[in-house]
Amino acid sequence: MTLHAAYDPDNIFAKILRGEIPSVKVWEDDDVLVFMDVFPQSEGHVLIISKTSTARTMLEMEPEALAKVTAATQRTAKAIEKALKPEGFSVFQYNGDAGGQTVFHLHFHIVPRWSDRPMKGHGHAPMADSAMLRGLADRIAAALD
Amino acid sequence: MTLHAAYDPDNIFAKILRGEIPSVKVWEDDDVLVFMDVFPQSEGHVLIISKTSTARTMLEMEPEALAKVTAATQRTAKAIEKALKPEGFSVFQYNGDAGGQTVFHLHFHIVPRWSDRPMKGHGHAPMADSAMLRGLADRIAAALD
Repeated sequence: MTLHAAYDPDNIFAKILRGEIPSVKVWEDDDVLVFMDVFPQSEGHVLIISKTSTARTMLEMEPEALAKVTAATQRTAKAIEKALKPEGFSVFQYNGDAGGQTVFHLHFHIVPRWSDRPMKGHGHAPMADSAMLRGLADRIAAALD
Repeated sequence: MTLHAAYDPDNIFAKILRGEIPSVKVWEDDDVLVFMDVFPQSEGHVLIISKTSTARTMLEMEPEALAKVTAATQRTAKAIEKALKPEGFSVFQYNGDAGGQTVFHLHFHIVPRWSDRPMKGHGHAPMADSAMLRGLADRIAAALD
């Protein structure tokens, strides 16, 4: 998919937002949803999306929605740091196929990092067990300020 | 460097902000500075930093400063898209050595992407020629809204 195309209301995150397919939620409010990536590049890999915007990429994102999503990313990163004690974490936001994007509803990734555990490639990680993800989500949620 | 340490006022971005070492600026205002990465992972690789915050990582960043930096990232991404017409672009923000961070003044990367040009690894790209970077910075600056 190119950078410029119409929003597909049947993309997987739109379906998650409508409750048509399940997700392992960490937290949500009226503006954002934070949930576990089912193909985690590391332990505790989460995704942050807007509930109100149908921007595909950062080119289209409403400034207010972008601010809410980035604030939610920060809040979640702090909770991950408390809960999982990674040595570091990487924030990724991909735009367009060539930019690494696979789902065309704007999203931020937080990938916790440990120096002795190689990060799996984006799009090359195996699907994780839901119960394991639920346990991680609960630990992160319990650490939210 | 770990996630938790004191801000080093002699980090390279602090020196750039004080004008002690040169940078190839794209644009700036009272809150942010946008400049070319001298080790570009692709053509048009830029960095966005706060002028007002001494946060090392996203864990410490003041919410207002984070909002300014992410808004500046979006503004710059739009200009890069117009000026350089990449097929996509990736936004990276690294925290802690293990998270990929090499300079401990919070920063966002925008790396333009083309499907037929492999992205160079972070920390593994050669230093770019200043005049070439100046040309790219001028093209991006001319496309700013």
